[in-house]
Amino acid sequence: MDKEFKVTPWEVSGEVDYNKLTREFGVRPLDDKITAKLKSRTKDLHYFLRRKIFFSHMYLDKALDELEKGNKFYLYTGRAPSGPVHMGHLIPWIFTKWLQDKFKVTLLFQIPDEEKFLYNQGLTLEDTKRWAYENILDIIALGFDPKRTKIFLDTEYAGHMYKHACMAAKKMTFSTIKSTFGFNDSQNIGIIFYTAMQSVPAFLPTIMENKKTRVLIPCAIDQDVHFRLTRDVAESLGYPKPATILCRFLPALTGPKGKMSTSTGEHATIFTTDNSDQVKTKINKYAFSGGKDTVEEHRKKGGNPDVDVSYQWLTFLEEDDKKLKKIHDEYKSGKLLSGELKQILIDKLNAFLKEHQKQREKARNQVEKFILKD
Amino acid sequence: MDKEFKVTPWEVSGEVDYNKLTREFGVRPLDDKITAKLKSRTKDLHYFLRRKIFFSHMYLDKALDELEKGNKFYLYTGRAPSGPVHMGHLIPWIFTKWLQDKFKVTLLFQIPDEEKFLYNQGLTLEDTKRWAYENILDIIALGFDPKRTKIFLDTEYAGHMYKHACMAAKKMTFSTIKSTFGFNDSQNIGIIFYTAMQSVPAFLPTIMENKKTRVLIPCAIDQDVHFRLTRDVAESLGYPKPATILCRFLPALTGPKGKMSTSTGEHATIFTTDNSDQVKTKINKYAFSGGKDTVEEHRKKGGNPDVDVSYQWLTFLEEDDKKLKKIHDEYKSGKLLSGELKQILIDKLNAFLKEHQKQREKARNQVEKFILKD
Repeated sequence: MDKEFKVTPWEVSGEVDYNKLTREFGVRPLDDKITAKLKSRTKDLHYFLRRKIFFSHMYLDKALDELEKGNKFYLYTGRAPSGPVHMGHLIPWIFTKWLQDKFKVTLLFQIPDEEKFLYNQGLTLEDTKRWAYENILDIIALGFDPKRTKIFLDTEYAGHMYKHACMAAKKMTFSTIKSTFGFNDSQNIGIIFYTAMQSVPAFLPTIMENKKTRVLIPCAIDQDVHFRLTRDVAESLGYPKPATILCRFLPALTGPKGKMSTSTGEHATIFTTDNSDQVKTKINKYAFSGGKDTVEEHRKKGGNPDVDVSYQWLTFLEEDDKKLKKIHDEYKSGKLLSGELKQILIDKLNAFLKEHQKQREKARNQVEKFILKD
Repeated sequence: MDKEFKVTPWEVSGEVDYNKLTREFGVRPLDDKITAKLKSRTKDLHYFLRRKIFFSHMYLDKALDELEKGNKFYLYTGRAPSGPVHMGHLIPWIFTKWLQDKFKVTLLFQIPDEEKFLYNQGLTLEDTKRWAYENILDIIALGFDPKRTKIFLDTEYAGHMYKHACMAAKKMTFSTIKSTFGFNDSQNIGIIFYTAMQSVPAFLPTIMENKKTRVLIPCAIDQDVHFRLTRDVAESLGYPKPATILCRFLPALTGPKGKMSTSTGEHATIFTTDNSDQVKTKINKYAFSGGKDTVEEHRKKGGNPDVDVSYQWLTFLEEDDKKLKKIHDEYKSGKLLSGELKQILIDKLNAFLKEHQKQREKARNQVEKFILKD
């Protein structure tokens, strides 16, 4: 297998070695000690934690320690809108919602509508704004607390952000940005500046609360690089360093490498607005199988759940550990055929999406309750 | 004399060769033809034009042609606040006020309070904001029409600017910024992005009027470099290229090189808040003289008005061409002594500043009428 991989906020390719990434990014593994500490507050552990889908962190211990002293953190996550929301996007948000429920804290949800505009030649700001409001429906559909959730588009909230972005930007040289993101001189000055805007929501809680207030950022590991820069400048600006809790990528349907991404093929991506037939077709046609070539051989030798994408997806979607283990074991033994495994995933996805789509429609009337504007 | 000179938005040094600069910057000399065209609209010519204090332009002809067709331009100028206003700052603003009176047009007055913050290590955003509101008093004191003048701080108006800055920024690479401003990789990403913010007021009139509306920017030549970048991106964004009309620098008191600047020595700078004794002391002590070493020699050989800073300043301050010519001739002939020439300047400055300071105090109650905020 290809051992080369690349993880940047704009590109994930190859087979990601998450342990290596944890070391390279200088973050901490989400080990039993920190998980136990979290559990002492939340009483139970989300299955994303039990299964190491969230696998590393930075300063989660500090955020929890501060909580002990009565200092609440804010949650902060985001979505750069450049197209429809797919299942991969939902993973950190589902977890963020769980954290909000457990800790009853405020969530800042940044929609950097300028980011993908600045990065992708083909996108206009009208495109990204349109996608922003489409994507917000998916966010609201997950059930965030409207009293504790503030969603904002960078271009609409810039009046409150630009000043603070400048303060961060003054401490970030192009040399640093260049080496951090692998940029070169042909990058446009908007995307060069952008990371300073992504720092700002890490500062806003302190400004809003008028006392030092840390953010805890649940996100996929590719975003940590932005927050590494934020951590470098935060304290000298009078803000606590942001804490992060980082997840793996939902694998692409077509194989266990990289992450599912609209850009790698729309046909093989499960969007939140897909109907049950589309889901069925996509899974049956594209979900990479860990099964054997013939039923006979499969029955005899069993399938390989470690590479089977349908099984991998179920680790993200099937909450029940026992059910999941049964699927794992039966697939490995050959009792469960690839087609049957796919059907389990199809049913799971369609049940999820049916409810999600219902909530997504309801969300259309709730947008105003969530949005922060200048 | 030192023939090396440097002109950037952040540094002016050496003896500036304005003809050479006109060629290097790719702008047009403000020749008799364009001046006549301007005069056909304004009826008279400001003495800054008669004396080539405003000496070059770009697209002024287009702005005037459009006016013929009933399409008004907007005026746009600015002030990066990092300290008190001195006489040198007032020159383009006095001319801007004359243009506003003649053409009855809207003026956008940008106060990029982030610019000097980003460029100068020692300045905070609180400093630049404080200076912004101090400097606005000097602007209002000049008598701009409150109905037609909109002053805004970048950090306060960013909600209306950031989006448009991103659109410009997407079309500006770091390579371009690097070569245009002489930047290197150690520059911070805020100052790299900043020029995009300075482009925005060139676009706002088209947005505000909902039809293509050009800006005419009266400013010192060092700022043209920003607008060269704006011109490169404007049309592809749907905006007319900005027109500029560019002036020389008021020379430093201490000699005809460079421009007067607080950073070259506060003691030798005439601030708008200086009292009459301070003015007298500074001029007598520091104003570089073109006179001879002894009264006897001066009477015999005469002074040199071309290098005498007091005389040079009077070309910026004495409206009456006849009076100025008389001073010139009498100084050159030796009839007027250096001390007497200085006294003429002192009286002129103090009369100007007395009125300016009166208006500046009155301006304290008018700020709200001029300010645009989010």
